Amino acid sequence: MKLLEDRIKKEGRVLPGNILKVDSFLNHQIDVDLYRALGEEWFRLFRNENVTKILTIEASGIGLAVVAAEYFHVPVVFAKKSKSKNIGDDLFSAGATSFTHGYDYSAVVSKRYLHPEDRILIIDDFLAEGSALHALIGLVGQAGATLVGAGIAIEKAFQPGGEKLRAAGVRVESLARIKCMSDDDLEFCE
Amino acid sequence: MKLLEDRIKKEGRVLPGNILKVDSFLNHQIDVDLYRALGEEWFRLFRNENVTKILTIEASGIGLAVVAAEYFHVPVVFAKKSKSKNIGDDLFSAGATSFTHGYDYSAVVSKRYLHPEDRILIIDDFLAEGSALHALIGLVGQAGATLVGAGIAIEKAFQPGGEKLRAAGVRVESLARIKCMSDDDLEFCE
Repeated sequence: MKLLEDRIKKEGRVLPGNILKVDSFLNHQIDVDLYRALGEEWFRLFRNENVTKILTIEASGIGLAVVAAEYFHVPVVFAKKSKSKNIGDDLFSAGATSFTHGYDYSAVVSKRYLHPEDRILIIDDFLAEGSALHALIGLVGQAGATLVGAGIAIEKAFQPGGEKLRAAGVRVESLARIKCMSDDDLEFCE
Repeated sequence: MKLLEDRIKKEGRVLPGNILKVDSFLNHQIDVDLYRALGEEWFRLFRNENVTKILTIEASGIGLAVVAAEYFHVPVVFAKKSKSKNIGDDLFSAGATSFTHGYDYSAVVSKRYLHPEDRILIIDDFLAEGSALHALIGLVGQAGATLVGAGIAIEKAFQPGGEKLRAAGVRVESLARIKCMSDDDLEFCE
């Protein structure tokens, strides 16, 4: 999606450790017009999938999920990150690792809010190793719900998360896919 | 705001420790139509204040801030909760306590995204003791920006946070103010 790629080119900063800072418009300061354009594009891609619910994970996914949900006219559910291993009976839970921040956590969702009849679209800001997305897909599975696919803003396509999930049959739609990046260069996949 | 009060009456659950669970529509599962109504009401209240930016704090405030920002046509900045005391030079930082979850943290925002010329509206889902709101107001002060006021979804008016801030001259607009609550009763302020 050219609008997003142009913005990344203009404002993204590449830091050591394969970190791409896009906090001027995506995940600290938020450009709500850009969010709306991303939401509209995910709606175009998934509009015929009878989505009943959008699932995301705190914190940066929430705003994107909410604007997307306005197009689909469905509720959002956001998974919480719990560092406790002591998870209650009333929760679905799946383990994940934050490679950027270097810690393990459980993605948890109340069993009240995911049901077997749900058709779930997952929305998130970043896809790199795919740990968070893998955990969210696990929650959908535990609920016995149907996974429609995943709408991602920025995929680091030089990391394996996206390709692994596509190989496993998951429909992953990333609106900007970065092929390679360094201090002075950033290239997108065709 | 009757729409919000009715929803709290219908779906809110009061748990021990003065906890009000509204996770079926506000802060775990999200009713985006309700969010939009809240955003529109905050816009009605603050529309003449020349708001340039909406400030909130992760995680539950983000969705509300994003829909409100669409009415104001301004960016959102969300403060992050850091448990580290080792805060960089490039951040504004203010201490806060989560009474519900029982821990201390710092609310931090990059200095890039709050400026002296900004007129800031704070948005958050809950106001009880007022610790998070107090920290956000501190960040606005550190930036030398102007605080326009705070738009809150649910205020526990039987706890002192809101009244203390109003007494200090802060404009606090809470869309539902709970006077008292127990297992079998929940009353709103007139």
